[in-house]
Amino acid sequence: MTINLAIIGAGVMGADHARIFANEVPGVKLAAIVDADVARARKVADEYGASHVTADPLEVINSRAVAAVVVAAPDKFHSALTLACIAAGKPVLCEKPLSQDVGECLSVMSAEEKRGKRLVQVGFMRRFDPAYAEMKALLAGGAIGKALVFHCQHRNVSAAYDARPETAIANSAPHEFDVARWLLETEFTAVSVFRPGGAAAPATVPVQMVLETAGGALVNLEVNINAAYGYDVRGELVGEKGSIELRNPDVTSRNAALARSTAYPADWRPRFAEAYRRQNIAWVKSLEQGKPSHGASAWDGTCSTLTAEAGVKALQSGARVEIALPAKPGFYATA
Amino acid sequence: MTINLAIIGAGVMGADHARIFANEVPGVKLAAIVDADVARARKVADEYGASHVTADPLEVINSRAVAAVVVAAPDKFHSALTLACIAAGKPVLCEKPLSQDVGECLSVMSAEEKRGKRLVQVGFMRRFDPAYAEMKALLAGGAIGKALVFHCQHRNVSAAYDARPETAIANSAPHEFDVARWLLETEFTAVSVFRPGGAAAPATVPVQMVLETAGGALVNLEVNINAAYGYDVRGELVGEKGSIELRNPDVTSRNAALARSTAYPADWRPRFAEAYRRQNIAWVKSLEQGKPSHGASAWDGTCSTLTAEAGVKALQSGARVEIALPAKPGFYATA
Amino acid sequence: MTINLAIIGAGVMGADHARIFANEVPGVKLAAIVDADVARARKVADEYGASHVTADPLEVINSRAVAAVVVAAPDKFHSALTLACIAAGKPVLCEKPLSQDVGECLSVMSAEEKRGKRLVQVGFMRRFDPAYAEMKALLAGGAIGKALVFHCQHRNVSAAYDARPETAIANSAPHEFDVARWLLETEFTAVSVFRPGGAAAPATVPVQMVLETAGGALVNLEVNINAAYGYDVRGELVGEKGSIELRNPDVTSRNAALARSTAYPADWRPRFAEAYRRQNIAWVKSLEQGKPSHGASAWDGTCSTLTAEAGVKALQSGARVEIALPAKPGFYATA
Amino acid sequence: MTINLAIIGAGVMGADHARIFANEVPGVKLAAIVDADVARARKVADEYGASHVTADPLEVINSRAVAAVVVAAPDKFHSALTLACIAAGKPVLCEKPLSQDVGECLSVMSAEEKRGKRLVQVGFMRRFDPAYAEMKALLAGGAIGKALVFHCQHRNVSAAYDARPETAIANSAPHEFDVARWLLETEFTAVSVFRPGGAAAPATVPVQMVLETAGGALVNLEVNINAAYGYDVRGELVGEKGSIELRNPDVTSRNAALARSTAYPADWRPRFAEAYRRQNIAWVKSLEQGKPSHGASAWDGTCSTLTAEAGVKALQSGARVEIALPAKPGFYATA
Repeated sequence: MTINLAIIGAGVMGADHARIFANEVPGVKLAAIVDADVARARKVADEYGASHVTADPLEVINSRAVAAVVVAAPDKFHSALTLACIAAGKPVLCEKPLSQDVGECLSVMSAEEKRGKRLVQVGFMRRFDPAYAEMKALLAGGAIGKALVFHCQHRNVSAAYDARPETAIANSAPHEFDVARWLLETEFTAVSVFRPGGAAAPATVPVQMVLETAGGALVNLEVNINAAYGYDVRGELVGEKGSIELRNPDVTSRNAALARSTAYPADWRPRFAEAYRRQNIAWVKSLEQGKPSHGASAWDGTCSTLTAEAGVKALQSGARVEIALPAKPGFYATA
Repeated sequence: MTINLAIIGAGVMGADHARIFANEVPGVKLAAIVDADVARARKVADEYGASHVTADPLEVINSRAVAAVVVAAPDKFHSALTLACIAAGKPVLCEKPLSQDVGECLSVMSAEEKRGKRLVQVGFMRRFDPAYAEMKALLAGGAIGKALVFHCQHRNVSAAYDARPETAIANSAPHEFDVARWLLETEFTAVSVFRPGGAAAPATVPVQMVLETAGGALVNLEVNINAAYGYDVRGELVGEKGSIELRNPDVTSRNAALARSTAYPADWRPRFAEAYRRQNIAWVKSLEQGKPSHGASAWDGTCSTLTAEAGVKALQSGARVEIALPAKPGFYATA
Repeated sequence: MTINLAIIGAGVMGADHARIFANEVPGVKLAAIVDADVARARKVADEYGASHVTADPLEVINSRAVAAVVVAAPDKFHSALTLACIAAGKPVLCEKPLSQDVGECLSVMSAEEKRGKRLVQVGFMRRFDPAYAEMKALLAGGAIGKALVFHCQHRNVSAAYDARPETAIANSAPHEFDVARWLLETEFTAVSVFRPGGAAAPATVPVQMVLETAGGALVNLEVNINAAYGYDVRGELVGEKGSIELRNPDVTSRNAALARSTAYPADWRPRFAEAYRRQNIAWVKSLEQGKPSHGASAWDGTCSTLTAEAGVKALQSGARVEIALPAKPGFYATA
Repeated sequence: MTINLAIIGAGVMGADHARIFANEVPGVKLAAIVDADVARARKVADEYGASHVTADPLEVINSRAVAAVVVAAPDKFHSALTLACIAAGKPVLCEKPLSQDVGECLSVMSAEEKRGKRLVQVGFMRRFDPAYAEMKALLAGGAIGKALVFHCQHRNVSAAYDARPETAIANSAPHEFDVARWLLETEFTAVSVFRPGGAAAPATVPVQMVLETAGGALVNLEVNINAAYGYDVRGELVGEKGSIELRNPDVTSRNAALARSTAYPADWRPRFAEAYRRQNIAWVKSLEQGKPSHGASAWDGTCSTLTAEAGVKALQSGARVEIALPAKPGFYATA
């Protein structure tokens, strides 16, 4: 059984998904690449062996030749395209965020529930990263007792386009929110945000977020989208009996010029290459087996957007903001 | 020139100071060991070659045979003994804290200023630790640009006697407060405190403190006096261009039983052995040269106690607490 | 285009190849699993979706339903099965060693050359390991100048079946020989072997091999098949300007019980999982493109066996043994 | 009791000894600094508070105002000065090597034995390095079972004056010989030496030495005096149950410019600062207590010179060279 796939969006993320599905995922065939810029779609299609290109996403979403859809279009189209997939009864892997608007997230949840079938996986790929997975397994195995504090640092070399702290919280932090929720198996209840200040502070600065959870653990998160020195995602989970730390997947170290060093990547792709590969394989397996993977659902996507919204409010007000989630629909209960 | 030294207190800290001065510090002679338990004083005196023992601290403070005093008595006697040294015109190295009471700290400052001579060094030995010293030198050298966030973790194996978070803030955190003030060359302006919660939370838990500073940098501090896994003090200073991390002074690693490991000490002594040695050498040198070292002054001791007081208030109230320091007397200006 | 694959051998290696091809390699279909123990073949076939099982390797090698063959049978059958594949004109991925007998290796080379087409890839998967690949790229990029000494340690937890040093050299060391030849792009010219000795020496001990090369660099290799502490393959390449070291692909570290630790695997599979995956993907790509990958050829397999033979002679004689390779056929020249 | 010390030699080593004794060693007074260049002696004397300077070593060796002597003169004078100290009955800490000539070493041993008192300590300071000391303690505690192979790398940034491999063996390697003998508590029985070769080999290259021991363990030693990248001394002791590795005493790591790094020193002083300090303290303590420390004796100095001599022979002949030690005099037996 080979699954015919359409990828919507032929930018950096879409092209990377095309590469992964073509070269590293058995069981699928690239049926179509969609992009407003058809030439760009054509280039990706040619490189990875997709037969069809078009500028019209609805054409492929509704095509009988397409069995499943990857949404890697610009963020603002995510929820609409996902809703179209639900309407067509097609499984969809939607890049994060599901939407930056909570209302749109809720409408996706509602449409999916109405359709009566879990069709949406949100591309929070860290759930498939070997390091986070091992951390979760060690926690579950009792290695550190109950989790107390999860220290996280999210560091980019430089802000892609918009260096405002609001953007850091809305755009980058959701990766951390989702993986922390998944790891700790709990929900956030409140968030406080701090910023370095002073006259000499740079135009953009890291924000430090302290998130409280229903389960009791704290999540202590630095979001630093202008960290300059490298792409670096860190995590240490502190428990009653010890702690577990993520390690970067370095494969060599070098000795030269009076230093011993390991390299940081310039962006997220080398760091999370394995996470994307495993995510995409797991998604295809979930399609074959007809049941959801442990990837993020529309509910999870909604929770992260809600948390980001509260985080921005905390940043702007300088006050602790409580996070009120809607009741979790039984539809999204995990087995 | 050999300086005759009296050590007041023959417990763990006092005995360790006796060992350091006897074995590792040139230029001094142990003239007297003082302890309410004279037998305990005698034991230390015999081991490290001190000629005189007594239960009466004032006897040695006022003795012409004693040129300088180390106060390593229980915390509650620190300020009174320091005041007695000032009254006698004797230089004193007072173990931290100067006092846990701000009023007592201020009275030491006032007495010292009245005496007109800098006589007090508070034993915040981390200022002499090679790791913190290298971090400060790298920062000064521009390695990371302006400092933005200082992440600190203070972890003990288990609480010595009192596991309440108030005690963690009052007793352990001041080491972090002092070294952060010294490193960043700024003062704290506000503090917020968070705790893991929930029904299942252990009797004592780490506290997470976020401290704001006049210079703009944040200090993000975990104080964890029941960390279980080892004595572990960490620090990462994040700046505009990169970051600097402290490393533990491990000298071997071991491969056995399916693990590669390095050892944590059970308490602070191996970790800060070099800091104590350098502190005590620097103090003796400051006595020889008649001018203060870069160790902590009575002003510094007062600032840490004030910060601890605000931290306890923030813990208990759940609110952000501003820290209002008195004006810094010119007497304590550093050259 | 989907390539129909037969896997000969359903033991640990064969089953692992079946898993990799089924779950991680696009473009192939498991057509048949072969094992003398048909029930064992059936189990693997069922788990990974192969349609056909048999005890007769020649049946599948000669079947028109099979386009390519993986030889994972016991070592002693490797060369005969590879010869049968050549006779049938079928591409073959033969697990290492090609043969432990140099004469058999040469007959494979000769048959392949006679057939006029490169059909054989030997399963020295380390050439596809990300760590060795990065080391080679850094060397090529001039990071350390000319290579001078390659320090290697090959450590197993315990000898699988035969702990004699001769077996260590014949069986385990060839992985090191091949990857060093590939990395340094040179041939071995002589080998000396040393062993720890003394009355108290354990039944089996590590052997230390010093290999000289035509290019000038030394390869200084510990082969330690009873290392006890973990599966651990190390390498440091020392050049004129610096050195490059391999790092194990650890993804977490743990703090507990007065130690900071990372885990060693119990055998080679976690360490080289990525190497096998990439090797198998590259092999399939080479079949699709009709030209050899950078994997090991029959010539490479022959060189490693010859080196092992010389190593055993050096061990037994206690003397330095020169390694005389036959002239390299132009047929095996790399583009 | 204060011991009056003379230091012979006011070059890099002599000045460093003056600094250490003046600033870090209690119980001694610098009585005299000796150097053929009296102005140089004066400079060191002024900086570290020595009262007397002279160009005549015999004057201070025979002076009643001098109780013990440090020999830090050029290597060729070591044995003659040590003999003069023995003749005067003065304890002497002689920088390594005791002599590069075995005959001279033996004459020192013979003079000392005739004098009937252990007066000579050779400055192989690594015996006092915390890393080697911890390695030895772990071995003694059974952490790795019996020792099998000791891998050592001795790397300098660049050869100080003479880059010939003979000089590397005669001058640098003895530090490794001595610490390996001390660690393993055994003697060397044979040595083989290998060099990278080839037309393109640099003027000087590392040498790889394999040393066999009476106890059975191998010592596998790279001596690399033009390693370029930093001063770096490494060691891994492999035993039956695991291994122990030395770690450099780094105190910070840095994140900048797409790399995480730790710094290497440019020469041996930062790496072995603590070893020199502890050595000198232990030497003074041994004078106070009238019994030798665990530092190297004239016997130990002789063994290292003999091993170096065999190593040079092995290098030049390309053959394995056996090492025949004289019988160890009972006079040098350790308690």
